[in-house]
Amino acid sequence: NVLSYIPPLKMAIFGGTHGNEMSGVTLVNLWTKNGAEIQRKAVEAVPFITNPKAVEKCTRYVDTDLNRAFTPENLSLIVQALVLRAQEINRIFGPKGSPEAYDVIFDLHNTTSNMGCTLILESSKDYFNLQMMNYIKVVALRIQTLCLVLLNEHPLLKYSTSRLEVGPQPQGVLRSNIFEAMRVILKHALDFIELFNEGVEFPPCTVEVFRVLERIDYPRDANGNIIAMVHPNLQDCDWEPLNPGDPMFQTFDGKTIHYQGSGTVYPTFINEAAYYEKQQAFITTRRETLVASAIKKA
Amino acid sequence: NVLSYIPPLKMAIFGGTHGNEMSGVTLVNLWTKNGAEIQRKAVEAVPFITNPKAVEKCTRYVDTDLNRAFTPENLSLIVQALVLRAQEINRIFGPKGSPEAYDVIFDLHNTTSNMGCTLILESSKDYFNLQMMNYIKVVALRIQTLCLVLLNEHPLLKYSTSRLEVGPQPQGVLRSNIFEAMRVILKHALDFIELFNEGVEFPPCTVEVFRVLERIDYPRDANGNIIAMVHPNLQDCDWEPLNPGDPMFQTFDGKTIHYQGSGTVYPTFINEAAYYEKQQAFITTRRETLVASAIKKA
Repeated sequence: NVLSYIPPLKMAIFGGTHGNEMSGVTLVNLWTKNGAEIQRKAVEAVPFITNPKAVEKCTRYVDTDLNRAFTPENLSLIVQALVLRAQEINRIFGPKGSPEAYDVIFDLHNTTSNMGCTLILESSKDYFNLQMMNYIKVVALRIQTLCLVLLNEHPLLKYSTSRLEVGPQPQGVLRSNIFEAMRVILKHALDFIELFNEGVEFPPCTVEVFRVLERIDYPRDANGNIIAMVHPNLQDCDWEPLNPGDPMFQTFDGKTIHYQGSGTVYPTFINEAAYYEKQQAFITTRRETLVASAIKKA
Repeated sequence: NVLSYIPPLKMAIFGGTHGNEMSGVTLVNLWTKNGAEIQRKAVEAVPFITNPKAVEKCTRYVDTDLNRAFTPENLSLIVQALVLRAQEINRIFGPKGSPEAYDVIFDLHNTTSNMGCTLILESSKDYFNLQMMNYIKVVALRIQTLCLVLLNEHPLLKYSTSRLEVGPQPQGVLRSNIFEAMRVILKHALDFIELFNEGVEFPPCTVEVFRVLERIDYPRDANGNIIAMVHPNLQDCDWEPLNPGDPMFQTFDGKTIHYQGSGTVYPTFINEAAYYEKQQAFITTRRETLVASAIKKA
């Protein structure tokens, strides 16, 4: 039972979807100027800045202050500009679901959480990306780089097929260790597509993934103000087991709030800067093993 | 030769001068709601959010996108609003230099640099603040907290008399370790003023400080684009000696750029997010010993 795909598979590399995540922005700009590093005999790979306006301002997105600085007229102009940009991206790398569409769209992100290298898979049935992530995990481990897979099933929501999060790195900062880790993961992704396009068949494999369970908010008072921080025992402990009764938050007056779930979970995206506005202190996951069918080119 | 001051000395505690530095914002908000923690018998201490608009948006300041989103008319409105705010602050805590002015204005900041607890002194001749910093350094050391003094002489430029930087903490993130460290330093500052107002005389003392020497920019190409990152050997090594020939930057194509100065310096503010726009990768300092006169209340 081997899935086959019509070659050659094409790959887009997105940076700057969030304009203050500087690793992806810097790599994509670098490869736009000089593509030698991402050139492969059998792969067409295109680097692309998705939100150049946010990159220019080094902000997550350009509409952070929509409700304050802009009139309703300006607001609708900005929404229009975003829709136009999405349509433009779909014209260049899609149309989504069509035969001309890029097969792999790798979206580069960094995070303030201590997540190391995390590949985010949008669908447990996406065997091609699952095979690619398995390949990356295995070769990365050979050079002592731990790379984990987070499964967040909503295949229709995102434009990209694979998202890479590397951390910890503050927003607006470029750290050489995060930069180099991202560069290495991208290299392995390109190598995988190169091997595939050259005709290598990948046998069925099993992949350990962490499936998103729950989004946990910060404790708040009646007015919605945060009244506690991530507990020092949990801070920076992404992917480590969190058991019922373990410290989870520390209130400003020094009380510990414990995790009350029914079993062990694996927290991640702990204390990510961008998720305060989404009312999310961390997410819980459970470990699962997925099976990917064999794949080869048609 | 004892300097005397007219008691009781008053203290203002500023947070939110930069709206995305969450430790000071959170502490000031906390103490505004419940001041028990900063109450002392002999000290009047007032917590104050300096830039509430930036705090509300969780941005460094509100005019980051002045050149883009705002018309010239709006721009001058914003400048007017900032001037009004500065005048308001001067009305409440000043007038600067007058007998009614607050004696100590402590401005709380956090940084993405690995600076630990750093007190910033604006003048080597400010013996009152130097005595206070010496007190904080010595008592902090007793609980194994290293607290350093950065000397940046420009006494007329800043409104505050003492600035505290604690790091590393990403912008827009609250970490419990940074929060607690800031809280402890503030406690010692209040204790010092309490002792002083109660009549304790502080004898002459010597204080080790790091005097700002030079601001070092990232290496750039002819178009002004950054072409290198802080070298992994220098990243997070704030306050550690940097010697001529030591690695300083790493270019995106993997070359090492070495420090070319004539002697040992002590770098700090290494890779601070907010200083990219100021074209500053880090600053160099040299170690000095300052002598502070004895002080007592008049």
